[in-house]
Amino acid sequence: MKAVAVYPGRPGSAHLAEVPEPSLDQVPDGRGVLVRVLRVGLDGTDHEINGGQYGTAPEGDDFLVLGHESLGVVEEVGAAVTELEPGDLVVARVRRAGTSIYDRIDMPDMTTDDEYFEHGISRVHGFLTERYVEEPRYLIRVPASLREVGVLLEPTSVVEKGIHQAYEIQRRLRIWEPRRAAVLGAGTIGLLATMALRNRGLEVTTFGLEEAPYLNSGLVEALGARYVGTRDRTVPQLAGEQGQFDMIFEATGFSPLVFEAMCLLLGKNGVIVLSSVTGGMRRVDVPSDAINLDFVLGNKVMVGTVNANRLHFEAGVADMAIAEAQYPGWLGRLLTHPVRGLDAFDDALRLLGGPGVIKVYLEIANGPTG
Amino acid sequence: MKAVAVYPGRPGSAHLAEVPEPSLDQVPDGRGVLVRVLRVGLDGTDHEINGGQYGTAPEGDDFLVLGHESLGVVEEVGAAVTELEPGDLVVARVRRAGTSIYDRIDMPDMTTDDEYFEHGISRVHGFLTERYVEEPRYLIRVPASLREVGVLLEPTSVVEKGIHQAYEIQRRLRIWEPRRAAVLGAGTIGLLATMALRNRGLEVTTFGLEEAPYLNSGLVEALGARYVGTRDRTVPQLAGEQGQFDMIFEATGFSPLVFEAMCLLLGKNGVIVLSSVTGGMRRVDVPSDAINLDFVLGNKVMVGTVNANRLHFEAGVADMAIAEAQYPGWLGRLLTHPVRGLDAFDDALRLLGGPGVIKVYLEIANGPTG
Repeated sequence: MKAVAVYPGRPGSAHLAEVPEPSLDQVPDGRGVLVRVLRVGLDGTDHEINGGQYGTAPEGDDFLVLGHESLGVVEEVGAAVTELEPGDLVVARVRRAGTSIYDRIDMPDMTTDDEYFEHGISRVHGFLTERYVEEPRYLIRVPASLREVGVLLEPTSVVEKGIHQAYEIQRRLRIWEPRRAAVLGAGTIGLLATMALRNRGLEVTTFGLEEAPYLNSGLVEALGARYVGTRDRTVPQLAGEQGQFDMIFEATGFSPLVFEAMCLLLGKNGVIVLSSVTGGMRRVDVPSDAINLDFVLGNKVMVGTVNANRLHFEAGVADMAIAEAQYPGWLGRLLTHPVRGLDAFDDALRLLGGPGVIKVYLEIANGPTG
Repeated sequence: MKAVAVYPGRPGSAHLAEVPEPSLDQVPDGRGVLVRVLRVGLDGTDHEINGGQYGTAPEGDDFLVLGHESLGVVEEVGAAVTELEPGDLVVARVRRAGTSIYDRIDMPDMTTDDEYFEHGISRVHGFLTERYVEEPRYLIRVPASLREVGVLLEPTSVVEKGIHQAYEIQRRLRIWEPRRAAVLGAGTIGLLATMALRNRGLEVTTFGLEEAPYLNSGLVEALGARYVGTRDRTVPQLAGEQGQFDMIFEATGFSPLVFEAMCLLLGKNGVIVLSSVTGGMRRVDVPSDAINLDFVLGNKVMVGTVNANRLHFEAGVADMAIAEAQYPGWLGRLLTHPVRGLDAFDDALRLLGGPGVIKVYLEIANGPTG
């Protein structure tokens, strides 16, 4: 069968490869689930892996199949699988368990191993292919009504992990009733964070580089959130205009902003969640005494978050279902750029980051059962 | 009676004042406790208040009685007080409840009020006087065996608050078994943090500016912790030599260090606790992309901590009792500079921060009952 693969470390090496058909027997004890891939979303990580900046091939292979944002349909299950049945829509988790205590309690997103395993990113092949076989623990069932938008579950799970971290941390306060949240960045992650925070009843202000109105500002406003364009304003100006927030979700990828925002936009006892992977070498001059003092006197918290575990995928399903009920059609508007067929992978990769693009995805097969 | 007071904002204004005797009736419903002050410790905050850098007088007064690290003995209790009796040793909490939800659940250290009330610091008089009257909720009973070292309870409570914040936050991990802790700074707070972390069974490395051996490095080693002098080493060198830590307690007052340490010395899923009040204007150039990426990929947390609530004072009593049992005499070695009598306040203030000084305190009255 076909797959889209790269040679890790070699820029622009994405190509259509012929790979072996998976088999239910890959998983022992009759616990295999054969999934037909319907859609795969692409993001900056795929772009960077194809750019040779990172990505690691599985042991024994010189190539890595791309794709970590999947939606598929179960075609066949092993004799001992009770969790899923043919016809179920599923999304696969990205990170696989390693060896640390966190991996052993199904929290591989918190692994302390030095090497980790992520489908389509590190040491295990991804889902930009026709079929795969997986264990039930790594599959999240998605209701049929989310068929059109289910490919957004993986990025939603990343948002849920960050928000859950904030709430878990704030249990330190015994009582935490956040009212005002800021989302920094209005890309896919920023929009999904806005959605998840609006679902929790927070007053949300989402900051993006572009001036409103444009597609993303309209999507923010459709959730009853406020969009603020930042191109011509400094963080101190924004803080003066917008006040401080109980929680900040950072999703811009622009790290200097983190150090300004954490000082000026974060209120007492507040928590700032960092979710951007910033692989660059940027430096910034910061008022270290002032930031430190502000964190100390305000009992503030900064937390980094990566990846997601099963809990966060399930929370994502719930939030997507709520969004479909509360803001019908909103999630679908994020799916701006469908590209048909694995063969068209190059078109899809080229679209990433372009104007008007929110989510680029490949349509790999039709209909729930193909 | 006598008290040591300042005129807030006027540098060097510390003076001996005559103030009214307190009365049990100041507290309604027979809930007053009259305390005779035995000892009061001084720290950098007192120095800065006398330097005019901060401090606020109570409403209606133009002066502020100094002193927030107290030890006293109960002389008399109101008819409705069951918690304490004459002869009990007590330490008074520093921050009084304001109006926010956190104040109402006895967590004034987490207040979200803009104005807060701290004995000897902000809006309420301190304990550098002969007697005071207080409600039982603001008094912590100290066992008689801690008579000699009880004046260290207030700084210990600040340490406990920071450590408790770390443990509360790490409940997000379901399982957290910290093994290696770093304490940055070997002053009073750094030494007490080393003690509290050693009591919890952690392997502790305490970093200080001076090269060993000297008094403080000896005190660190007496706890079975490791002392590392940092004068001629960079943070990258230290990280290379010492590895990474599950938890870092920052107590240097040197903010640029925070940004280096949080990147290089903090391990995966780790938490860095900031406890230094840095009132200066220092700035530092930081590798913002690298710090952000490191926090994200490592699920790391930074938390600021100030003040303490009753829980932390009580934890401090427990830790001081354990320290006396485990390392007899150790706490007493921190009390390097006793100064006799309120009249000698100037000598005491002059000693602060000098070579060989750990804790300066005023002996105000003798014996548990004077």
